[in-house]
Amino acid sequence: MANEEVMARIDSDRERYVEELMELLRIPSISTLTEHRPDMQRAAEWLRDRLLAAGVSSAEIHKTPGCPLVYAEHLEAGPDRPTVLVYGHYDVQPVDPLHLWETPPFEPDVRDGRLYARGAVDDKGQMYMHVKAVEAILLARGELPVNVKFLLEGEEELGSEHLDAFIEAHTDLLSCDVAVISDTGMFAEGLPSITYGLRGLTYIQVDVYGPSSDLHSGSYGGSVMNPAEAAARIVAGLKDANGRILVPGFYDRVLELTEQEREEFRALPFDEAEYVRDLGVSATYGETGFTTLERTWARPTLEINGVWGGFTGEGSKTVLPAEAHVKISCRLAPDQDPDEIRDLLTNYIHEIAPPGVRVEIVPMHGGKPAIVPLDHPAMSAASRAMERGFGKRPVFIREGGSIPVVATFAKALGAPTILMGVGLPGENAHAPNEWLLLDNFHNGIRSAAALLDELAALAPAAVG
Amino acid sequence: MANEEVMARIDSDRERYVEELMELLRIPSISTLTEHRPDMQRAAEWLRDRLLAAGVSSAEIHKTPGCPLVYAEHLEAGPDRPTVLVYGHYDVQPVDPLHLWETPPFEPDVRDGRLYARGAVDDKGQMYMHVKAVEAILLARGELPVNVKFLLEGEEELGSEHLDAFIEAHTDLLSCDVAVISDTGMFAEGLPSITYGLRGLTYIQVDVYGPSSDLHSGSYGGSVMNPAEAAARIVAGLKDANGRILVPGFYDRVLELTEQEREEFRALPFDEAEYVRDLGVSATYGETGFTTLERTWARPTLEINGVWGGFTGEGSKTVLPAEAHVKISCRLAPDQDPDEIRDLLTNYIHEIAPPGVRVEIVPMHGGKPAIVPLDHPAMSAASRAMERGFGKRPVFIREGGSIPVVATFAKALGAPTILMGVGLPGENAHAPNEWLLLDNFHNGIRSAAALLDELAALAPAAVG
Repeated sequence: MANEEVMARIDSDRERYVEELMELLRIPSISTLTEHRPDMQRAAEWLRDRLLAAGVSSAEIHKTPGCPLVYAEHLEAGPDRPTVLVYGHYDVQPVDPLHLWETPPFEPDVRDGRLYARGAVDDKGQMYMHVKAVEAILLARGELPVNVKFLLEGEEELGSEHLDAFIEAHTDLLSCDVAVISDTGMFAEGLPSITYGLRGLTYIQVDVYGPSSDLHSGSYGGSVMNPAEAAARIVAGLKDANGRILVPGFYDRVLELTEQEREEFRALPFDEAEYVRDLGVSATYGETGFTTLERTWARPTLEINGVWGGFTGEGSKTVLPAEAHVKISCRLAPDQDPDEIRDLLTNYIHEIAPPGVRVEIVPMHGGKPAIVPLDHPAMSAASRAMERGFGKRPVFIREGGSIPVVATFAKALGAPTILMGVGLPGENAHAPNEWLLLDNFHNGIRSAAALLDELAALAPAAVG
Repeated sequence: MANEEVMARIDSDRERYVEELMELLRIPSISTLTEHRPDMQRAAEWLRDRLLAAGVSSAEIHKTPGCPLVYAEHLEAGPDRPTVLVYGHYDVQPVDPLHLWETPPFEPDVRDGRLYARGAVDDKGQMYMHVKAVEAILLARGELPVNVKFLLEGEEELGSEHLDAFIEAHTDLLSCDVAVISDTGMFAEGLPSITYGLRGLTYIQVDVYGPSSDLHSGSYGGSVMNPAEAAARIVAGLKDANGRILVPGFYDRVLELTEQEREEFRALPFDEAEYVRDLGVSATYGETGFTTLERTWARPTLEINGVWGGFTGEGSKTVLPAEAHVKISCRLAPDQDPDEIRDLLTNYIHEIAPPGVRVEIVPMHGGKPAIVPLDHPAMSAASRAMERGFGKRPVFIREGGSIPVVATFAKALGAPTILMGVGLPGENAHAPNEWLLLDNFHNGIRSAAALLDELAALAPAAVG
């Protein structure tokens, strides 16, 4: 079988893949620091050259107002085959505090089967799995079972500032049936995982204004509504004692978990006692009737991100503050809409605001939640591919955070995204001593190669 | 009548009093700025010399770890006459922003019957009224009707840091039957006022701790109690919708206003619409069943003085904060006890704190409320004295703030305090263009002189 030949080649080239990845890891492509802009260009050129060396028919660098994008494609499978868009990012987080690194962040070092370097797992290593998978198939068979496009950006750690504009301006170039991203994690070591749901976000700032200037609390205390008290009352009025959000209509579009999903979550090796201990809290807390994984993965929530007002220095100042401010964000479950939730929340806050203060609400930003139905043929394909790559059937998990590009792919390209990551808990993605388990890197390449074969079996229409 | 002679002398020396006061106002005795320490010494020496020139038998400067105190006494009336302790302060507030002064702050200028200078009303002018009253009586009669002591400090604008220790270490020296302070205001121009009640204070900081570090609100939102939310719930739980404080036992010791007091407050020329407009609020707000003057003068209250936690910068950061903090103070009505209220409040906050967070309460500081019963003979004496000085019967008012030395006099000396101030609304006590109405200065000297005669008519036992 051709597939066996590809896998054999990946197994035999294992060491070479690591050595190549180490070359990329030596380039300090920190997008947040402008002094590294030349490194961004170097990393982009290195990727372009490696993509061409892997055998893809074209690869090019696109300038943006920020860091360059690398686009590559190999469309030889032809229009009657599905097209797969691989997204990844070659920029990395800053490295401070530098003194906590056991080996320098840009001098990759292998210890105990782990490759230590900044960007090892986030996202250079995971991104490169797909380049090597394509190379292995082309070496073994001379052709790919599907059309493949690569979109590799250099601003993910900056908030992908110019990515959406690029995608929206290049929808023909990027058109695809399915997108694949390896920038997520496995639930635990030895437990290959596919992330099929992400939460969305609505972020607002609530500005509460009272008297036109700070007042002496002796002379005026008791006579006017205190904006900091008003802000507290607003916050306290947003949830009931069971942690349920009181904004009317808030839950209307929430896709309830199926009994099957809940069972699968319960079957995961999640240790509540360890979770509580790691966070340093006395107990978990959240919406009654749901487990911690359900609450963080699949239920909407409302969190206070920041609050300030009045005298916040050391000691005591008897001031009645003129204003108070609260930053509030909601994580949204599929199929909540960030704009709708923002409006519902805004209206409700105005409704419950105490008298005697003026409340202004500033919308900050938002992002749609994402979910790929578990019975979507792309998910079954991904499941079989990971089983082939890891020798173990993957679990389906969700993530509480957002990956905004997933919503952009859905909106601009009409494509679902497979999130097939091989990160692990404790991998220090944004901290000193970031690492990538080399077994996961290897099995990730195998999975990525298997995925292209699995997706090939589907007709384009069935995938898109 | 001897009294007529004293008043005639005060009326004829009116201009000289103003000229002398201007000398004192030219000394920039700003206690908060260490570069003015030599000016503090100069001002203290000037006062000592003026007291001696006024004819008191002794006047001396007492060093403190900070700015000097001036103590003077004239005890020739003898032990069968009451002793009156006059308190005042010769230090002044800083002058910034300097460019907003129409004439320089330490170059006194008379415009429209007002004396403009830093310290004119707070408190050099008001303090000096008593020096001149004593001088006028001694000039007219060669003796005072009561024993008089002066305690003039130079750290009031610094929080009277060393005053309590001085008083407690000199209770014999300072022993008196009644204290008099002119450092308050009249309710309105043309309305002489005696302040007979002050509120006390209990100030705490509430520290709410959740997870051991800030968490990503995507990954963890919904799973643990958010400390900023917990702080808001605590604050919201402290009062009911009618503005009544829910801390059990909070109101137990509150001295209720008499129907007579309420009637007198209602008779004052208070314009609620103007009050609301001046503060820039849409409406007043406070405990149901009480007017604004009652709420600020005679009812306890609870105010948020400051709140902070999580991300407070510009923009949006999706953090679930590790901690949040609230500064809370209660203004206390007579006869609430600051320590008892602090304990009641502390216990109640622990009781209503949501689960999943750790709450610590730091006591900051406190002060007792003060009230002199309206039927106290010293109050009747003060009322008659002001009527004599101003030609109009004074009103009895309260103040929402605290004058801590009043509680110290009560505790350390067992003496009630008469608050007979001649400040006016808009006098800019802590702002640029501070002024003192010269008519009030003059009538204040007349009142201060009349007060000594009125107090003399009382037996020492009846006053103390």
